Amino acid sequence: MAVATDLMGSSEFSGKTLAVCGPGLLGGSVLMEARRLGFRESRAWSRRPEGVAAVRASGLVDHASDDVGAVVRGADVVVLSVPVEAMPRLAEEMVPVLRGTGVVVTDVGSVKGWVEERVAPVLAAAGISFVGAHPMAGSEKGGLGEARCGLFAGAACIVTPRDEDSAAAGLVRRFWEAMGCRVTAMTAGEHDRTVARVSHLPHAAAVLAALTALGPDSAVGRFAAGGLRDTTRVASGDPSMWRGILVTNREAMMPVLAEFRAQTDRLMGLLERGDGEALQALLEEAKRLRETRYS
Amino acid sequence: MAVATDLMGSSEFSGKTLAVCGPGLLGGSVLMEARRLGFRESRAWSRRPEGVAAVRASGLVDHASDDVGAVVRGADVVVLSVPVEAMPRLAEEMVPVLRGTGVVVTDVGSVKGWVEERVAPVLAAAGISFVGAHPMAGSEKGGLGEARCGLFAGAACIVTPRDEDSAAAGLVRRFWEAMGCRVTAMTAGEHDRTVARVSHLPHAAAVLAALTALGPDSAVGRFAAGGLRDTTRVASGDPSMWRGILVTNREAMMPVLAEFRAQTDRLMGLLERGDGEALQALLEEAKRLRETRYS
Repeated sequence: MAVATDLMGSSEFSGKTLAVCGPGLLGGSVLMEARRLGFRESRAWSRRPEGVAAVRASGLVDHASDDVGAVVRGADVVVLSVPVEAMPRLAEEMVPVLRGTGVVVTDVGSVKGWVEERVAPVLAAAGISFVGAHPMAGSEKGGLGEARCGLFAGAACIVTPRDEDSAAAGLVRRFWEAMGCRVTAMTAGEHDRTVARVSHLPHAAAVLAALTALGPDSAVGRFAAGGLRDTTRVASGDPSMWRGILVTNREAMMPVLAEFRAQTDRLMGLLERGDGEALQALLEEAKRLRETRYS
Repeated sequence: MAVATDLMGSSEFSGKTLAVCGPGLLGGSVLMEARRLGFRESRAWSRRPEGVAAVRASGLVDHASDDVGAVVRGADVVVLSVPVEAMPRLAEEMVPVLRGTGVVVTDVGSVKGWVEERVAPVLAAAGISFVGAHPMAGSEKGGLGEARCGLFAGAACIVTPRDEDSAAAGLVRRFWEAMGCRVTAMTAGEHDRTVARVSHLPHAAAVLAALTALGPDSAVGRFAAGGLRDTTRVASGDPSMWRGILVTNREAMMPVLAEFRAQTDRLMGLLERGDGEALQALLEEAKRLRETRYS
């Protein structure tokens, strides 16, 4: 990790002001780590009054409001941790206050191309630095109540700077490293194709398995055991968040879903022909691939 | 539970002889519970010499051998816990020794129609009672080394007696209840359609997700997190065991896989049209179905 943080919380973030827009699981966990990093002031914005009340009650912030201008004014680092689809409007709302300041804006969105196309230009037009990020520390259980210290420890975080050598790119990399992440830079397109495969496709498979296994006949559910439970765990994730992810990453998702369907056809073909040997090879390949990643 | 077992291990199984053919995860765990139930003698058969050596070394049995006749001779209860495809040959091998005795044979196979067609008639022709069972306590980690006391505690067990009122059906029900299972009786066909949906389909989905997510580009694997890990957990199961399950339950699996493919098509159609509302309804339905079963 490139950032030096001593026991007194001294770091390049000491004395700076942090604003988190959308203090849920990820935003709330960022606020918890901020203190350790020596941020002088922490603030949070939520569009909903209940969100403002909850983050105030948490004691994690010096200031919370549903007025985005009041929250981001004078901030050094702004973290967008709202659903991806809500980011463009939020960016527009903060432009008047952030224009001409040295602020750096980052985000936690699960999709990066869509954000680069719709959020980065809004900020760039006003001379505001934006470097997208995706800390991969989510869960099917969201909300501020699930936020915790250490959430980011060892988690992969992909950053998608347009210019990797810019000061803003360096700062955003160090910010997420300081949160505890292992940071990798790539293009937004590479990011979206990667997560389509390793995150969004498994989510889709879990959803499709839940619909097929439990949909037609609720009586069979009582015979479902640990296999179905784990295979479908992520299908308990927030539907509106996942709707946003799948819709905004549609371009990368479609070819991966087509591959998934082709694999399904392959399995059905082997079963139909009763080709046990090819079926065993397919099962062995899946086992090998999984165990290469998860031992 | 219908069986009474006092602290001295006295039960209807007291003084009886148990023979387990294939002492792996399930068979080994049956042997561990057998002592508690007061069986006078426990024996195990394995086709492989290493299997015989391992169960001997475990101290779980009074006698172990690769000679099936020697192991089942004089047994009161025989448990077939070998892969489904190996059962017909094993049944044929034990007929000469069991003919005309009062033995009751049961099994642990994940598929019941195939067993009813190929195992039950072999035994019935010799007047030997057979009642199929499927204790749903498997795991992606198999083998005698994984066997444990309490494996069956609270697990669902489906039994498929041809005549539910027969003495053998009653004994097999009480045997699996005494192991700790919640026992339900149904026809072999009902069983196979149920497990195709809640067990074999999730297994297929996990395998297909592993192949699609990790197959084409091993570099993406390092960005795979908990979602893919859990969604694909069961894909680490024994390929030859799962080949047997899928091939022998092919008839029930094909329509369920066709439904799964239709759900995939439905998801792809919604994404292609960018129909966010219908997509959200689909995600909400999957979440609701899953949470009805797993809170």
